[in-house]
This record gives sequence, C-alpha cells and structure tokens, in this order.
Amino acid sequence: MASHWEEFYSTNPQPVNFENNCTLLKNFCESHKKNNQRIVLVTSGGTTVPLEHNTVRFVDNFSGGLRGAASAEYFLDQGYSVIFLHRFNSIIPFTRHFNHLKMLDMLVLQKNEKNVSISIKPDSVDMLAPILVKYQRAQEDNKMLYINFTTLSDYFWLLRACCEYLKDIGANALLYLAAAVSDFFVPSSQMATHKLPSDGVPEIHLQLVPKLLVPIVSLWVPHAFVVSFKLETDESVLISKATGAIKKYKHKLVIGNMLHTRRTRVVFVTEGSNYEIKLTEEQISNGVEIENIIVKNVVSVHTKFIEGTF
Amino acid sequence: MASHWEEFYSTNPQPVNFENNCTLLKNFCESHKKNNQRIVLVTSGGTTVPLEHNTVRFVDNFSGGLRGAASAEYFLDQGYSVIFLHRFNSIIPFTRHFNHLKMLDMLVLQKNEKNVSISIKPDSVDMLAPILVKYQRAQEDNKMLYINFTTLSDYFWLLRACCEYLKDIGANALLYLAAAVSDFFVPSSQMATHKLPSDGVPEIHLQLVPKLLVPIVSLWVPHAFVVSFKLETDESVLISKATGAIKKYKHKLVIGNMLHTRRTRVVFVTEGSNYEIKLTEEQISNGVEIENIIVKNVVSVHTKFIEGTF
Repeated sequence: MASHWEEFYSTNPQPVNFENNCTLLKNFCESHKKNNQRIVLVTSGGTTVPLEHNTVRFVDNFSGGLRGAASAEYFLDQGYSVIFLHRFNSIIPFTRHFNHLKMLDMLVLQKNEKNVSISIKPDSVDMLAPILVKYQRAQEDNKMLYINFTTLSDYFWLLRACCEYLKDIGANALLYLAAAVSDFFVPSSQMATHKLPSDGVPEIHLQLVPKLLVPIVSLWVPHAFVVSFKLETDESVLISKATGAIKKYKHKLVIGNMLHTRRTRVVFVTEGSNYEIKLTEEQISNGVEIENIIVKNVVSVHTKFIEGTF
Repeated sequence: MASHWEEFYSTNPQPVNFENNCTLLKNFCESHKKNNQRIVLVTSGGTTVPLEHNTVRFVDNFSGGLRGAASAEYFLDQGYSVIFLHRFNSIIPFTRHFNHLKMLDMLVLQKNEKNVSISIKPDSVDMLAPILVKYQRAQEDNKMLYINFTTLSDYFWLLRACCEYLKDIGANALLYLAAAVSDFFVPSSQMATHKLPSDGVPEIHLQLVPKLLVPIVSLWVPHAFVVSFKLETDESVLISKATGAIKKYKHKLVIGNMLHTRRTRVVFVTEGSNYEIKLTEEQISNGVEIENIIVKNVVSVHTKFIEGTF
C-alpha cells in the first residue's frame, strides 16, 4: 500500500541545503511575479531510492534528463522564466550540446613571452556562440534557476517548496513534471544501517511511493497548469494509463511516450481527447528536437488556460 | 548462490560497440608494448543492474568516480599509459576540475565587424591552462584510452577484453580496480520484459554476482599486478574483509576505505601486513588529494613487483 504523502514528509528529513534553496526559490518567484511573468517548473532526471542508510546501493530510474534540459531551453525561447529542478549531474540546458571532453578539445592555448591565453578554436565558435549568447542572456536576466536533487526524498521536499512559492503566481505558473520519479521506495524504518553484506542475497522490502499529483493539484498549486509525463514500454497500455491519470489526479495534460520512440513521438492526453505529435522524416533530418514542438504546444494550451478557454 | 563467471558470459550478450572497443584496446596495448611501457587499467564509477529488459529501473552503486578519475591523472604523471574504463557520464580526468556551467561561465564572447571569437576569461586561465596542457599532452602521446560502460554486463565484457590485451604486457600491467561493481543482479531469465507496473509492489529476485578477481588473477592476467578496492561503512569489518579478500583471490593489494572518510584515509592491505595512509591537516588545507599519495605508493610497490622484490 502507498504511504500517505504527509507520512512521507514526517518520516523523511529535509535535504541538506534545503533552507538555502527555499530562499533562492522565494526570491526567484517574487521577482518574476512583479512583472506578471509566466514561470515554468521543469523537473528533470531520475530520483534515487537508497537501500541503506549509509548509502552505497540505491535503485535508480532510467533518465538522462535530455527531455527536461531541452524543454527548459525552449521555454526560455518562449519567454518563460524557468525553475530547473534536476537530478544532480544529469543533463542540463546549454551544456547538453557538447560533452566535457569535447569542450577541452575545442580549446587552444596561446603563449607569448608575457602572456598565456586560451580561446575556442575558430571552427567550434559557430556552434558554441549562439548557445553562449542564450546562456549569458538567461543569466543576466535571472531567467533560469538551477536546483538539484538526488534521492526521492530530496525531490519530494524540493517539489513541495517549489509549489509553495509558485502558488502566488496563480495561472501563470506551469508545472512540467518530466522527472522520472521512483514508484517504490524502502521506508527508513526498514532500511539497513550499513552496506548490505555482499556474501548473501538481501531481501529488499519495497513500498509504493505516494503520488504527489494528489496534493499538487488539490492543495498546493490549485490554480496552476499542471502537465505530467507517462513513460511506458508497452504501447497497448499507454493511452489508457494516461487517461486514467487525468481522471484520477484531475490535472490538465498528460504527455505519454514510449521508451524506444520517445525522441520522435509523444501523445498529448487531456480530459476527453488525445492527439499525437510525431516528428516527420524531414524534421528529423533537419535536427528538429521534439521538445521544441512539445513546448510550443504546451505553451499554446497554457495560454488558453490563462485566458479561461481551455 | 553466485553463478559461475563463465555462465554469466554465456547468458549476458556482448554490449553494443564491443568489437570497436576491442580494436581500440588492442591497438593501445600493442603500441605501448613496443616501448616497454607500463600500462594501468583504472576502472571507475558504478555499474548498474537493470530490473527490466526494457530498462526503466535499475539498481545502481554509489560512486561518482572521483577516485578513479583523479588516480588516472596521477598515473599519467608517473609515466604510465592509462586505460580508463569508466561508467558513462561519471567523473573523468581533467574535466573533473570544473563542472559544466562553470565552463560556460569562464567564456567570454568578442564581436567585431568581421568576426566572432570566444575566449577564456583571463582570471580563469591560471586554473585551466595547466589542466589543458596535461590533457593535450596525453592526447598527443596517445597515453589515455577512454572506454565506458553502464551495466554490470557491459563492465564484465569490457574488463575481460582489457585483460585479454593486457596479458601480453606481463608484469608491466597494473590493474587498479576502483569501480563500484554490483554484488547482486537480476538474471536475464527472471527479468520482467516491460516496465514493472507502478500500482503494485514488485518482487525483485537478486542473485550474487560472480567475483571476477578469481579468473583475473588465476587465468586472464596471471603476471599482472592486481589492486582491488574495498568500501565499507562499518569500520570494525574493514581490515578483516580486506585480508579475507587477499587470501581468497590471491592478488597483491587491497585498498580499504570507509564511505565517510574515503577522501582523507585509506588502508593498504597486503598478505601479512597493512598500513594506513592518512592526509595530514596541512595536506588537506593545501588541497593535496589522497589519490596522489595512493598512486605514488601503488607505483612504488608495482616497481618492486616488476623487480621481483615484492
């Protein structure tokens, strides 16, 4: 049985640095509220579920975080301010376009008698310059706030804190819940203190994770536009599960996707209707990212929602 | 019961790109063998254990990969050629010194009428230049080979391939097994095909992972110097477990460490003796990394081993 969400908070302590993150969230939301600015909360990457108090082993959810990171950039393009609540060390906006070693390979060292300088090789400038311009503009305008989590418990605490400060934003707030959240966890009371011995097979007692969509929609941000994601590997259950989620949680939109086609196809499921977004061969060969199309569609329904016509 | 290692290979298929990695390993080992060069295999980061064939969920081992990445750099400093067998997206040598966003923050864009250029801000050049020089030298001299894994099965296949090509290097080969390898896995035959349903609590049937140190030491690289790591959270079992491993697997050295003090203290355990390496307060405040000291000590015993005095 799922534990109740209130019980989860009462038995799992706040993450380190929580107060500091709350201050950042508060300041970010307040400064954008003044300008009647839309704010999107993008959650991204997987949560971990520790199996031991002194954590050596944990259950993780597959998610590199590409969908969230790409979407965050496209929301910026659409004029949104973005809270990017992401798994520590997952893919992040802007830097997702080049990996670490590629970055070093782009650098060239110049030495003269007086001076050492380092610059980007001319043939990489064309790729890097537009990304850098967007990154620097977002930094200067304070349009993107980066907050990270690792465990399921971190995520729970930080997501609730985001909602607390987004509540005042009303319908201008959009929740875009793309993180891959664990469905199961090991309750603190049943967790081994030390590393599980490696010479015997451990018993792992899993419990269902409470669904935060319940308090999010009904209590925490009742006026916000809430979008959740559903990842499946079995096509035959995708639409029915997404429709079931809409009915159960009463939020506005579920974006369904299949593990192996998620980069080229998603299904938008709302109460009473669903439609597919699929990249064409031409779009794929032109390097169009599906997140660009997803975000444009989400923004369009969010606008209708704000205008009261959704 | 642990499955036998031969059974593991016969029931878990080769990773994608395996042949290509074998060619890289073969060429790397052959080119350094000509120069009678010492080669270290550094394994780094955690392996994952998928819970489903279409993997959404997996069990992971805590390891950022800092120890492996730092050690790889220090082995280069000591003149070794390095095979860096690491978890995909874990910490890697050189780039470990700055994270992604810090990298973007270091960049400055210059525009004039004709030209756009990007350079590193002068105040970051002092930090970056020595790292870049070492990275570029290693690239030019072909001293570091990067190979990555994700799952336990990838790791098994790639580690055996490394041994196959290191066998010819004889005593000049050093295996520095710092990766955090799963102790348990879900056998392919007992794995669910699709994502485990999220409305019921799954039963996870774990099996013990065969210990590869057995074939490594006795069959695959019998003349190499093999170092393994042991991470514990319970101090009282550290030395006895490390000593037990030496007796059982008959390799040369176990480096023991505790989860919460691993950045400042390790224990070197050999057959019949053990000694501690601990950073002094002065070393810590000067930013000395323990991997620098560990690697110097390992190189010193490796030299004795080659000379036949270990």
